[in-house]
Amino acid sequence: MKKIGFDKVKLNSGLWKTLQTRNEETTIYAVKDRFEETGRFKAFSCDWREGEDKKPHFFWDSDVAKWIEGVAYSMINGKNREQEAFIDSIVDMIETNRYDDGYFNIYYTVCEKGKRWTERYNHELYCAGHLIEAAIAYKKATGKDKFLKLMFDYADCIYKTFVTENSASFMTPGHEEIELALVKLYEETGEPRHLELAEFFIDKRGNNDKDLEDECGVNCLYIQAHKPVREQREAVGHAVRACYLYSAMADLARINNDAALRTACESLFDDISKRKMYITGGIGSGFSTECFTVPYDLPNNEAYAETCAAISLAMFGQRMLELDVDSKYSDVVEKVLYNGIISGLSLGGDAFFYENPLAYDKPVSAEYDRQMNAGGRHRTIRERAKIFGCSCCPPNINRFFAAVGDYICGCDEETVYIHQFMDCDINLGDESLKIETQYPRDGKIKITYSGGRRIAVRCPEWCRKIICHVPHTTRKGYMYFENTDCLEVEFEIRPRLVRAASAVIADSGCTAVMCGPVVYCAEAVDNGDNIGDLYILKDGKINTVESTLTELCDLEADGARMAEQRELYADYMAELEPCKIRLIPYYAFANRGASEMRVWLNIR
Amino acid sequence: MKKIGFDKVKLNSGLWKTLQTRNEETTIYAVKDRFEETGRFKAFSCDWREGEDKKPHFFWDSDVAKWIEGVAYSMINGKNREQEAFIDSIVDMIETNRYDDGYFNIYYTVCEKGKRWTERYNHELYCAGHLIEAAIAYKKATGKDKFLKLMFDYADCIYKTFVTENSASFMTPGHEEIELALVKLYEETGEPRHLELAEFFIDKRGNNDKDLEDECGVNCLYIQAHKPVREQREAVGHAVRACYLYSAMADLARINNDAALRTACESLFDDISKRKMYITGGIGSGFSTECFTVPYDLPNNEAYAETCAAISLAMFGQRMLELDVDSKYSDVVEKVLYNGIISGLSLGGDAFFYENPLAYDKPVSAEYDRQMNAGGRHRTIRERAKIFGCSCCPPNINRFFAAVGDYICGCDEETVYIHQFMDCDINLGDESLKIETQYPRDGKIKITYSGGRRIAVRCPEWCRKIICHVPHTTRKGYMYFENTDCLEVEFEIRPRLVRAASAVIADSGCTAVMCGPVVYCAEAVDNGDNIGDLYILKDGKINTVESTLTELCDLEADGARMAEQRELYADYMAELEPCKIRLIPYYAFANRGASEMRVWLNIR
Repeated sequence: MKKIGFDKVKLNSGLWKTLQTRNEETTIYAVKDRFEETGRFKAFSCDWREGEDKKPHFFWDSDVAKWIEGVAYSMINGKNREQEAFIDSIVDMIETNRYDDGYFNIYYTVCEKGKRWTERYNHELYCAGHLIEAAIAYKKATGKDKFLKLMFDYADCIYKTFVTENSASFMTPGHEEIELALVKLYEETGEPRHLELAEFFIDKRGNNDKDLEDECGVNCLYIQAHKPVREQREAVGHAVRACYLYSAMADLARINNDAALRTACESLFDDISKRKMYITGGIGSGFSTECFTVPYDLPNNEAYAETCAAISLAMFGQRMLELDVDSKYSDVVEKVLYNGIISGLSLGGDAFFYENPLAYDKPVSAEYDRQMNAGGRHRTIRERAKIFGCSCCPPNINRFFAAVGDYICGCDEETVYIHQFMDCDINLGDESLKIETQYPRDGKIKITYSGGRRIAVRCPEWCRKIICHVPHTTRKGYMYFENTDCLEVEFEIRPRLVRAASAVIADSGCTAVMCGPVVYCAEAVDNGDNIGDLYILKDGKINTVESTLTELCDLEADGARMAEQRELYADYMAELEPCKIRLIPYYAFANRGASEMRVWLNIR
Repeated sequence: MKKIGFDKVKLNSGLWKTLQTRNEETTIYAVKDRFEETGRFKAFSCDWREGEDKKPHFFWDSDVAKWIEGVAYSMINGKNREQEAFIDSIVDMIETNRYDDGYFNIYYTVCEKGKRWTERYNHELYCAGHLIEAAIAYKKATGKDKFLKLMFDYADCIYKTFVTENSASFMTPGHEEIELALVKLYEETGEPRHLELAEFFIDKRGNNDKDLEDECGVNCLYIQAHKPVREQREAVGHAVRACYLYSAMADLARINNDAALRTACESLFDDISKRKMYITGGIGSGFSTECFTVPYDLPNNEAYAETCAAISLAMFGQRMLELDVDSKYSDVVEKVLYNGIISGLSLGGDAFFYENPLAYDKPVSAEYDRQMNAGGRHRTIRERAKIFGCSCCPPNINRFFAAVGDYICGCDEETVYIHQFMDCDINLGDESLKIETQYPRDGKIKITYSGGRRIAVRCPEWCRKIICHVPHTTRKGYMYFENTDCLEVEFEIRPRLVRAASAVIADSGCTAVMCGPVVYCAEAVDNGDNIGDLYILKDGKINTVESTLTELCDLEADGARMAEQRELYADYMAELEPCKIRLIPYYAFANRGASEMRVWLNIR
């Protein structure tokens, strides 16, 4: 199975159409403005000098590269053509300021000249990877190949340094990304050296003295270099690095039919999805190092769950699906799509969360949060910010939202697979495919297909009742329909209560409310303060109600409220008063000012 | 009201008799052995040289001083006389190695010679304070005054440096302790300079440029030097430092009848006891800096709640009681006495907790905990250790347990006050007082008194039914009995459920079980794994049962168990199976190997 690229997909309506349009019309410009202000674009001119302000950071190349990638994808979708000249000017700056051997990196050109390939943790290859991805996207969007050629040369330079000469101080990068970029480059150029270089970085990881000599304990785990990748079975370390690595591993498992890599990927995906993933699809619960910690360590207030990490999990899941059409992969992608990724962006489309906690306690003041953090607790910002110093997430949203069509369908010779349900037209050349749905507001899916292949439709794991009158067989969570040109399926969507594993101590005694793939939360702005005094009634009703906030529904659950207790400790005499609990989609939280919030609610 | 010192009190039976005996027979020797092994005693010879191992740490003087104080108190109780020669030898070393001006500090004599009075954070005055306390105790125990004379000279040296010459780099210490020690010294010697020096440190704190110039933000709060002490209303910073300071403030408020100091102390005590104290009396929830954080931030797994901090709160509460006989102070002292202090010592008496969490999740491995900690979560050790590098708590237990009699009674001209209920004889010279009780195993108290004063007896805040047939009046939580030579009171002790304030998010949806002043907990060793799947039944029974672990009762509560869920997320279909939940006194947790534990339990 190969994915059907987003360039073949035209979204027509629904939540993701809204999000994509907002990205193309607002978010891309919001990010551009912030990058302009902070000097990220100008940095490509490589004329910063010591003592000046706006000193380029070692990951600025990648920030801009992701933004270019996002703009390029939106061009393919027919938007943002007017950005072309601006991007051309950036490409020109890269051409002007690169070294003769093809090398380009702002930080090691203007800040730490001479330290090229000596600092494993300073994102040098990570930046290269993102520039390569941007160049590929830009070529697709414009047909212009200058950027791509520059990156071709850069890849040659990297090949020479790492493979031919082995002259860098390290052998594999401190932040993965180059690996999956090189696979993409190989698939674009067909140049075997690009694949070989990707294999080199994968094979050498955790497998050579240079990788291990100065990194032991935490650091080796942190960058997934603690052992050869084929022996890795548990997701460890920085979550984004991990899933970028695992994505490349899955790519190579597919391309090379590498059973050992595939086995490792399967275990790693299971370890994440069965033991280390928030109900929102968020991953990397460890706030102090943005990392995976241990199974079932999923605190809510202190969740890190970086937006980029959610994106990286979708990328990994998507690639696993190409190895094996099993809904366990596309279910996780769906979870991330409707929760942990989109929570990172404000409803207005111009402000961001880097972290995505699953609970906020009562906002008091920034000084309060600061004091709590000083004590070792972690409280993140409580309202989405326009910009972050570390600004990886906003342009990652740009490129992900523009290319979300990538996640909908795939095909092989016999079958067209429908993984995600979005209202869209898909151009398959001779064949056409139309999906009509208002999912996830509504579970009805109508599929119209002109072509000779069978259709496979994912059955979402959360669905308890599927209405479908067309004969089909089911395998690995997909319904297979033979000889069908039109079919209707309905996945009954109704609010339901979810319990977390006993081992998740943070969720003990609690329930989460979901409706279809969407996780809900309760905010104080709707329910009054002390969300912790609210109880969902296990046998109560949960009704869907119109939302003023999102195009999905809100929920209203039968609940009970315990009277507020102000005394620190008192006799347990709480009487419960019946009440209604208003729930909004999790992703829409913190759009009405700082407010107490919980996903996991008490239950009686 | 002045306390009646422990030297007038002879414990006869009961929990605290057991604890005191164990301290005198086991704990004091366990600490001595560890101090011997680590070179703490030998360090007093001041012959350590650079390059040798066992480099003296800047707080070693204080560790040994607290141990000497504990041994001295136990001598007064008639134990450990054979340690006298050993302690004499330490005193001799101090005499030999002190400077001509009276100065003595191991670290600044052998490690950082020449840096005397330049490093505010290196516990120089803290060590001096503990040496002074030890010298006073040793004089009381033995009648020998050499140690005390040395400390008299040392106090003069400090006076000259800080008051006369103002020649130190700082004006008030980075770790308080000297203040309360100087008040004690003044009360022993009657020398006005000692009181004046204590006043100096109190008055100057947060009130001068030297205090503030290089410490801003966290650090100033951390050491309570962010504003003049009389303006302080909220407990901030390192909890032990805070309560040592507040104790000295309360002393001076009493001695000098200083209304501004008293007002500050009242607010600070209220802030702690009403907003920042665990149900165990533990304080300082911030693990990363051992500090108070913000009101109601009382996480259970990540509780810091240092044993020393609990001790310091008892010290503060005791001094507040001398300012105002109000049971709100003695109730807090009781809470600490039966929970947060004694949890710091193993039942065997020879192993310690520095931190006292209110929950442990399932033990997996030290590596698991390490990975969790690396992610920013805090998991402390799971079994009491024989020794800590930072070993302030074990000798603090030595001195506290030996002198616990200090907390029982007080008197003024008209009244004899009974604050804590322990089975004991109290020698008041012409008068005698006998308290017969098995409290807190049983709530009956029999008081026999020969003397003309009235008797005041604290009514514990947790008690809902007092049986007493003797006429009395009640004021500020104390029952006052006139002309009584024998009286019986019974405080009905029965298991009860406690709820925490709505604002304590860590305890939302949960209840704690107490019986009298004793907090209970559930351990997996009694209840099986997944304590988070247990529910106390709100309307169920809780019976007392014999304990094999402690001399108090265990409890058996009607509860329900939710079947273990292994899937990370699943439909909420939990059926509850009735079960019994075994509860043991909190202080006895982790005495049967590493085990899951919770104080705050789910409730239905």
